Amino acid sequence: MKDIIYFSKTNSVFVLDQTKLPFKVEYVEAKNYKTIIKLIKKLSIRGAPAIGVAGAFASYLAVKDLSKRPVSDLFKIINTRLESIASARPTAVNLTWSIKRFKNILSLNRELNSDQLSRVFYLEANKIFKEEKKVSSLISKFGARLFSRNYKVLTHCNTGALATTGPGTALGVIKMASKRFRGVQVFVTETRPLLQGSRLTIWECEQNNIDCTLITDSMASHIIKVEGIDIVIVGADRIALNGDTANKIGTYQLAIACKYHKIPFYVAAPISTFDFSCKNGEMIKIEERSPEEVIKIKGILVSGAKKVSNPAFDVTPNSLISGLITEKGIIYKPNKTKILRFKDC
Amino acid sequence: MKDIIYFSKTNSVFVLDQTKLPFKVEYVEAKNYKTIIKLIKKLSIRGAPAIGVAGAFASYLAVKDLSKRPVSDLFKIINTRLESIASARPTAVNLTWSIKRFKNILSLNRELNSDQLSRVFYLEANKIFKEEKKVSSLISKFGARLFSRNYKVLTHCNTGALATTGPGTALGVIKMASKRFRGVQVFVTETRPLLQGSRLTIWECEQNNIDCTLITDSMASHIIKVEGIDIVIVGADRIALNGDTANKIGTYQLAIACKYHKIPFYVAAPISTFDFSCKNGEMIKIEERSPEEVIKIKGILVSGAKKVSNPAFDVTPNSLISGLITEKGIIYKPNKTKILRFKDC
Repeated sequence: MKDIIYFSKTNSVFVLDQTKLPFKVEYVEAKNYKTIIKLIKKLSIRGAPAIGVAGAFASYLAVKDLSKRPVSDLFKIINTRLESIASARPTAVNLTWSIKRFKNILSLNRELNSDQLSRVFYLEANKIFKEEKKVSSLISKFGARLFSRNYKVLTHCNTGALATTGPGTALGVIKMASKRFRGVQVFVTETRPLLQGSRLTIWECEQNNIDCTLITDSMASHIIKVEGIDIVIVGADRIALNGDTANKIGTYQLAIACKYHKIPFYVAAPISTFDFSCKNGEMIKIEERSPEEVIKIKGILVSGAKKVSNPAFDVTPNSLISGLITEKGIIYKPNKTKILRFKDC
Repeated sequence: MKDIIYFSKTNSVFVLDQTKLPFKVEYVEAKNYKTIIKLIKKLSIRGAPAIGVAGAFASYLAVKDLSKRPVSDLFKIINTRLESIASARPTAVNLTWSIKRFKNILSLNRELNSDQLSRVFYLEANKIFKEEKKVSSLISKFGARLFSRNYKVLTHCNTGALATTGPGTALGVIKMASKRFRGVQVFVTETRPLLQGSRLTIWECEQNNIDCTLITDSMASHIIKVEGIDIVIVGADRIALNGDTANKIGTYQLAIACKYHKIPFYVAAPISTFDFSCKNGEMIKIEERSPEEVIKIKGILVSGAKKVSNPAFDVTPNSLISGLITEKGIIYKPNKTKILRFKDC
């Protein structure tokens, strides 16, 4: 598979439009940062780590077209543009984290002209891309150690190569486990409303010859019970200092089901998904998206509902999490003390 | 609203095709019992109590066209036809219960000719229709006592006038509570794969001016927590002797969520939904339906999944059920002893 986001020879950015998957593999060309913001907002590119990388590529584009501006104007213009990229989606902290790196570079290089800045931003975007790739490989390795032969795993949403620039977080772990152990079976929730599970995760699993079965979100507890699921692994969009985790809506429900069935529930995410400024889950802002996502499927109206709730994420308390799988290793039964120790190691 | 199933003047049967709702209110004419079987199988008529009534109407049609047959042939032909009606769907016990009544009539009236039998079956079908109506009114009254002003209730699937011949079971309770108490708010899960919640329950609530909000199935636990849901009420397709309850897939997950959030979880169903021959939930056969229901929505392919699991129901153990709301009253913390006592009262 080609990378989900890359620079062309003329340094515009190409982004795989994931809203078209699995039926069309189509890349969109983004010549300026506003197009990337639009692509992030309409979920053509999604998944916390991938959004961080998209933000980095957008940051470069935000500087690229400023060659005629005097150096004295640059800081203000670029800073404003970076702000607007950072606010494209509110929950995934990787975007803020990525933009912060460009803001720091900008602050430390006020004397540079736009061509010079553009070069520095280009290198930084590529660096973030590569770091993210390495990080998800490490997460996959650490996570795969939790598996054994014939393990049955259930996962939610898409956390694979489409959500990162490497093998993925939760799905990266599952891919690695499937290579290492015989007979691994994956159960994939469809992940309403936007069907990232049935559209994207099933597609990635089938491309990787992984034994995968699609279920609706409502079936998870029943399947955990009747199939004897061994482990549930999901990704994360923001992890608070105490380990409370915001992730795709439906995650909280899965974690509760794991507690009831006494099976482990793991979250796989890079350190860039941790928000150390956020004390706990109650402080995480949950993105409320359009009712249309629920009442329309593929553009077709399925319900006449006038009132619709559509939170894109929910928060799982640390008490329901067996461990956080990061590129530095696994934080078992996460809490503030353990997370701070990990941050600094 | 017209009844969801009725006899025309020429004694054919008209059935509201619920697969077309909420966008089309369309009745299908059934001139023979095979058409009713098809309508049950493709869920044009669904909901355990309504399936029981549809089975009764089909039983009449199964006799109606036998006027040229000698009396000696009738028993065998009709009995075979009744068997095929009874097996249209395996999980809802109301269908078996309803057909058993016609089998009894048939056994006790071997001397009758087809016209006479046809008359008796017609009266019995109408009787079942009316009984079902009365039963769901009683359930609604008993259940509404569990409410107070400003209660927030969450429900699953459709259990209203579309699933019964009266106000409904769980949704009947909610309608009655909304009339009796100010500020009742209903949260409705869409109920994948067939969207009975978003298509049917939302439609019924809006027709009855009930404050209703649509959510996806994955949002239930999050909504229970952030909205402070007071009570969850669902219907049932089969209740075992110990109170274990088979109901629409996703019910088990809701019951687990209620336990975790320490809120009551009630099941509303007529006594005809109890299967006294079934010791516990493990003995209930769960209908596995076509993968197409999951990977296609409104006929449009949404996933390329090759392996799909599509159980139509799941089983909630009695330990997760606060009470069973029946036409005879509420069975709190149901178990075999309490249910047997209720049966005979």
